[in-house]
Amino acid sequence: MISVEEARARILADLRPASIETVALAAAWNRVLAAPVTARLTQPPADVSAMDGYALRAADGAMQATLEVIGAAPAGHPFAGRVGPGQAVRLFTGSVIPAGADGIVIQEDVTRDGDLITIREAVTAGRHIRRAGQDFAAGEVVIAAGRRLTARDVGLAAAANHPWLTVHRRPRVAILATGDEIAMPGEPIPAGGIVSSNSHALAALVRAGGGEPVVLPVAADTIEAISAVADQLAGIDMLVTTGGASVGDHDLVISALQARGLAVDFWKIAMRPGKPLIFGRLGDVPVLGLPGNPVSALVCAILFLLPALGRLSGLPGDPPPTLLARLGAAVPANDGRADFLRATLRRLPDGALVATPFVRQDSSMLRLMAASQALILRAPRAEALPEGADAVIIPLDSLGI
Amino acid sequence: MISVEEARARILADLRPASIETVALAAAWNRVLAAPVTARLTQPPADVSAMDGYALRAADGAMQATLEVIGAAPAGHPFAGRVGPGQAVRLFTGSVIPAGADGIVIQEDVTRDGDLITIREAVTAGRHIRRAGQDFAAGEVVIAAGRRLTARDVGLAAAANHPWLTVHRRPRVAILATGDEIAMPGEPIPAGGIVSSNSHALAALVRAGGGEPVVLPVAADTIEAISAVADQLAGIDMLVTTGGASVGDHDLVISALQARGLAVDFWKIAMRPGKPLIFGRLGDVPVLGLPGNPVSALVCAILFLLPALGRLSGLPGDPPPTLLARLGAAVPANDGRADFLRATLRRLPDGALVATPFVRQDSSMLRLMAASQALILRAPRAEALPEGADAVIIPLDSLGI
Repeated sequence: MISVEEARARILADLRPASIETVALAAAWNRVLAAPVTARLTQPPADVSAMDGYALRAADGAMQATLEVIGAAPAGHPFAGRVGPGQAVRLFTGSVIPAGADGIVIQEDVTRDGDLITIREAVTAGRHIRRAGQDFAAGEVVIAAGRRLTARDVGLAAAANHPWLTVHRRPRVAILATGDEIAMPGEPIPAGGIVSSNSHALAALVRAGGGEPVVLPVAADTIEAISAVADQLAGIDMLVTTGGASVGDHDLVISALQARGLAVDFWKIAMRPGKPLIFGRLGDVPVLGLPGNPVSALVCAILFLLPALGRLSGLPGDPPPTLLARLGAAVPANDGRADFLRATLRRLPDGALVATPFVRQDSSMLRLMAASQALILRAPRAEALPEGADAVIIPLDSLGI
Repeated sequence: MISVEEARARILADLRPASIETVALAAAWNRVLAAPVTARLTQPPADVSAMDGYALRAADGAMQATLEVIGAAPAGHPFAGRVGPGQAVRLFTGSVIPAGADGIVIQEDVTRDGDLITIREAVTAGRHIRRAGQDFAAGEVVIAAGRRLTARDVGLAAAANHPWLTVHRRPRVAILATGDEIAMPGEPIPAGGIVSSNSHALAALVRAGGGEPVVLPVAADTIEAISAVADQLAGIDMLVTTGGASVGDHDLVISALQARGLAVDFWKIAMRPGKPLIFGRLGDVPVLGLPGNPVSALVCAILFLLPALGRLSGLPGDPPPTLLARLGAAVPANDGRADFLRATLRRLPDGALVATPFVRQDSSMLRLMAASQALILRAPRAEALPEGADAVIIPLDSLGI
């Protein structure tokens, strides 16, 4: 058995980012940038006003001084002339500071009478002026490659004058459920059979991780049916299998795919739920074989498939984000396998999070897994912890998983 | 001036969820459920094995007892006969327990010789058996309406045999940037002009919040250009405007839309950045008018537009999620306006988060806003806090905003 961390490291070491494409700025949100965004202009392009008011020579801006308003410079309509002694130009937030002016009096600090303003608050040179390039200068890298683009990044790329961005393709992940007992929702269910849930949950998780799922038809428990998947992998960045449990977890999936050239990397991970795991390669395509139990499949997907999706998308492939929370119930000492306890979260009035594990942790109970708001991480051989102790958790709902 | 909380409450009180539609299960991830999901079957459908092993009469399962294996029941292929005294049936995880059997011996605890097995660990009745309905029973509500569907929920809906789900439409949000100085990325920039960033950042934020953005052409600073937007609102669930700052924040937008029937609800909010805000209604369409400064627009969008998107999507419209973090630098006492400080986050070895505000908090600096990982919340008239004190933050990157 190997540890969760070693398994994740081995998987990530074997993955390469998906190739790149150019997409419209409007389609770039949540994609991973493959080439840095370099500012194509300087922002602000010139010294501009940070307030609504009047531009003047700061030397003219003494208390009670009166100046003549010789024009206006709305944003986008710079004043063409020059501000001379005793003169002022009306301007607004974002207006270019006219030539000759080095001070701003804000509109609340003047009284205006026709074309004359009287200063009611002494002016300081440079105050309320945003200097050219204060935000960024042409040629500067404003967004580094390898970042998943937020809404703010999209705005920044726009401000830097980029209508197109170069990003990694969304990784295309094929999902194969196997088992004679499996029916698709709404289709006839065989005697003793169940409805497929893993492939749909995993497809949604692939979307949550920024990938494109490709759900393959359910394969019967035969070497022929399973091995036929090897002919469906053109253009696929990763194959994820679940189940094959009807003749011992994964044995049939492994034999069938080995016959088509699967090189298997490892088998068992020191974790609960989800001990059995395949990782290998079928030709060029990495293969991740998840357990068939729905809870085990989902926990393994969170721990291994999400980081793999990150790596395939062009990110480093960090583990799922964790937080500290207080335990809402005592937890016993752990054995040699890492434990991922399904738990609810609540927030105390002081803002602290409390994570309370469900009493039942059976790996077939999908309903409890769906109701969980977090996984509590228990390291191998972790000591018992009392209620109220700090524990590391993976919050689930915020990731859409 | 009104508080952030009052403004948000007023906005939410005026919004109704978007109408409903039926979507394929595969398209339901991240949508908000509009009708409860009721289990159409019982899961597991019968008593099933939790392990690979043999079914037998528990009374026969004493240490060293030898039993005859009379058949096998792979998952999906229930054993048709009955287990009698001295008999056993091979089964696997998920296999239906055959009639007559009330115990399981796991495969590691037997030795097998041809059709005979010898028990190496005494069997307890009911152990390793998952009872019919342990996960859920037909007719039970397994997912309540009003929930944003996670990957786990999609799996649960599949397991409950639902190929289709009833969800709220994604709210369609029209975005209007105004200003003579504004150019779209890649298009000619007027003298003293800048490239539009707000509408692109907001469109991405609408996507992050589960909506569909509709970016309207930039409107020039004229009553005619702005008021023409009123003719483009068929099928739109909300109109968001930004800017109009060239003749005083929003004045032109308000006058232009008032001429078309805009009823304005309020104007100024006790917050920084982002004091000026419009909320009102143009016919049936709610209108949210954001400030023109990119940072102010984004902070207001996080505080008001994201909850509004939640409400329009069918959720309650909770404020953006917050966490506790330690301050990486002292912060001064606050005045009468709530402050939302742009900050970086780092994690200490003990798992605690540290939020450090940027020294510069100018509301025109989009690059710093994009580099921020959190907003530090400072209530009106909050006292000064030293480095290391606890503060409430809104983490940004995890929301895709």
